[in-house]
Amino acid sequence: MADIFEKLVKNYGPIGQHRERAHGYFAFPKLEGDIGSRMKFRGKEMIVWSLNNYLGLANHPEIRKTDAEAAKEFGLALPMGARMMSGNSNYHEQLEQELAEFEQKEDAILMNFGYQGIMSAIDAICGRHDVIVYDAESHACIIDGLRLHPGHRYVFKHNDVEDLDKQLQRAAALIEKQNAGGILVITEGVFGMAGDQGKLKEIAELKNKYEFRLLVDDAHGFGTMGKTGAGAGEEQNCQDAIDLYFSTFAKSMASIGAFMAGPKIIIDYIRYNIRSQIFAKSLPMPIVIGNLKRLEMLRTMPELKDKLWSNALKLQNGLKERGFDIGKTDSPVTPVYMKGGVEEATAMVMDLRENYHIFCSIVVYPVIPKGHIIYRLIPTAAHTDADIEETLKAFTETKAKLDAGAYKVEAIPDMAEAK
Amino acid sequence: MADIFEKLVKNYGPIGQHRERAHGYFAFPKLEGDIGSRMKFRGKEMIVWSLNNYLGLANHPEIRKTDAEAAKEFGLALPMGARMMSGNSNYHEQLEQELAEFEQKEDAILMNFGYQGIMSAIDAICGRHDVIVYDAESHACIIDGLRLHPGHRYVFKHNDVEDLDKQLQRAAALIEKQNAGGILVITEGVFGMAGDQGKLKEIAELKNKYEFRLLVDDAHGFGTMGKTGAGAGEEQNCQDAIDLYFSTFAKSMASIGAFMAGPKIIIDYIRYNIRSQIFAKSLPMPIVIGNLKRLEMLRTMPELKDKLWSNALKLQNGLKERGFDIGKTDSPVTPVYMKGGVEEATAMVMDLRENYHIFCSIVVYPVIPKGHIIYRLIPTAAHTDADIEETLKAFTETKAKLDAGAYKVEAIPDMAEAK
Repeated sequence: MADIFEKLVKNYGPIGQHRERAHGYFAFPKLEGDIGSRMKFRGKEMIVWSLNNYLGLANHPEIRKTDAEAAKEFGLALPMGARMMSGNSNYHEQLEQELAEFEQKEDAILMNFGYQGIMSAIDAICGRHDVIVYDAESHACIIDGLRLHPGHRYVFKHNDVEDLDKQLQRAAALIEKQNAGGILVITEGVFGMAGDQGKLKEIAELKNKYEFRLLVDDAHGFGTMGKTGAGAGEEQNCQDAIDLYFSTFAKSMASIGAFMAGPKIIIDYIRYNIRSQIFAKSLPMPIVIGNLKRLEMLRTMPELKDKLWSNALKLQNGLKERGFDIGKTDSPVTPVYMKGGVEEATAMVMDLRENYHIFCSIVVYPVIPKGHIIYRLIPTAAHTDADIEETLKAFTETKAKLDAGAYKVEAIPDMAEAK
Repeated sequence: MADIFEKLVKNYGPIGQHRERAHGYFAFPKLEGDIGSRMKFRGKEMIVWSLNNYLGLANHPEIRKTDAEAAKEFGLALPMGARMMSGNSNYHEQLEQELAEFEQKEDAILMNFGYQGIMSAIDAICGRHDVIVYDAESHACIIDGLRLHPGHRYVFKHNDVEDLDKQLQRAAALIEKQNAGGILVITEGVFGMAGDQGKLKEIAELKNKYEFRLLVDDAHGFGTMGKTGAGAGEEQNCQDAIDLYFSTFAKSMASIGAFMAGPKIIIDYIRYNIRSQIFAKSLPMPIVIGNLKRLEMLRTMPELKDKLWSNALKLQNGLKERGFDIGKTDSPVTPVYMKGGVEEATAMVMDLRENYHIFCSIVVYPVIPKGHIIYRLIPTAAHTDADIEETLKAFTETKAKLDAGAYKVEAIPDMAEAK
């Protein structure tokens, strides 16, 4: 008989195993100062490409003013209790109505946190006879929602509509056999790693062939995509085909919380049955008021989205012109694909930070296959031309070093010291 | 083949089925004004017994000042990104250290929200060979954690140590047979409905007989129980036997967020592997700073807990003296058990609100068996003697009406109009 803790100590997990070297630098770094394109990391000013502050709202003077005033007026405790019991307010309801209107849906439900929100909504909607068909690269919070599902689920190859067709066929056959249940298809508006949009329009067209409902997690599309910023559904002109539209406030809205919008009768069902909401405290009033202000600015200041896209295209075109592989992004998310080992990636990130003062996120094995490195850059409306130019220069120079083998461990024996 | 939405519309769930009559009154009511013992409900001042603001911190001038100043200094957007990627700060780490110290544990991890926090921690800790043994009345967030567990789980009768012994025997036999895995026992410090403490000391003594780790959700005990307010483990003098101590900030702390404290090596494992944290945005700085202030006050102002208990005992003794059944509570949570149908309970709550101006929560069928009613009163340090006396008087009078059949539907044909 073993101690349940034993196995944890033996294997700290994919990132945890590197924690002694990585902690505070590669993992759990501290970015200090106001949110913007330049912040301090370990005392040095860096150009920051790691924050999903797409519209630059995080530190906008009007947002700062609203956040400060709402916290002064209400404090951060109010309201207390779950919304169903004692934590409801006019502001919570107003935010729901405005979000629904913005997404052209009948109703919306506010959620305390995106992660538990979508996970628990999937749980509320799907019964044991229902079948969930989902994109292979769905975010962890969707996967955890699926894990709560007692029924069947079929995965389709990332953004592969032909494979989705096959999986829908399997799902339909199973439901036929069970003589009960329906199908929920789940995908994302914009995939946060590669920046490619979910093929919502093509997926929606399969509704002509199969009966299903479509849930779209548009965390990265909300505020950044579509004419009005309503997201990837608007961008692809198929918003109506999205039955349940979900987004967190953690990206364009630079806040916490989330929402799901859809038909009134279904949102009402979710409102009364979503476990992580009915059994947990309501979102604090200043957060709700802050989100009302953010939504207002997102709707009424198209110049923020224009600036985001102008920066995104400058960065992406600059990278492409310099021969970098940025994959198939068609959103502001900008991945830069390179080849190299984990040690090389590590050394290159350190060089970027210490000598070029560029702070960006990096993805390596085991998250992606061995020998591959992804740098993920998130341009925002808050970035400047100078930020972009310096970054392009830094990437050009460090990429040349990478290709020349300068980041191989034997080339830099004192690497560990730089920490 | 059916539409996945169809079944939802047909059955709105236990509370949702009453939504048309209940919404805004029994469900999703709005309490307005500053948090305190008296707030406004539909324009009328009520004595409020529904908020877990145990220590009265929600609207304490020092808390209001700290919340306002922190929001002014940092805004509500900072930091952005998950703590592992870009959302870490000295304040987050300081709060973790202070919580660990207060709970006499080596380390603590801060969580964004209690619900997803404990659920995801259970998921991080338990592998498929592990067995979870849990109290039958565990909170929904624990149950959702169990639902993510791919291995076996055994439930023990609520607070029944003899039954726990039996279930541990089954669990040990299974692990023996599997030749792999360990046991995690999960219970609560104070059960939020009935107010009885989990029998932590007796449970811990079973460690002499079986090898297991003990996780305690002390949401209602943190700040209210034990000499220093460190919770039910301190109260029962068995804090050391609690391997993982968990509490939300949604009750005594009058905030959002949560934490888990335990051995450094295990907390570190959780820190690097808890999905709802590593894949979700960090808690906003003003919330963290507000929680640091709340923790400081909770630790240094024992008069708050003394006042809570003085009020709790006045209320509980007053009810008992008047012949009310408050069950087996040994915490401030004060349930009042009565007999009656759902319609009678509804009418009594309306009478309490409309004519006595008492706002409290009510639990009826199908949450508890038919014919039973539970009123749940949460005394706080913010209540006054007058609040308690008025409430005792109101309960005495309305209980007499209930017993006399005055709340039976036929007795009040215009009940629906009062809404």
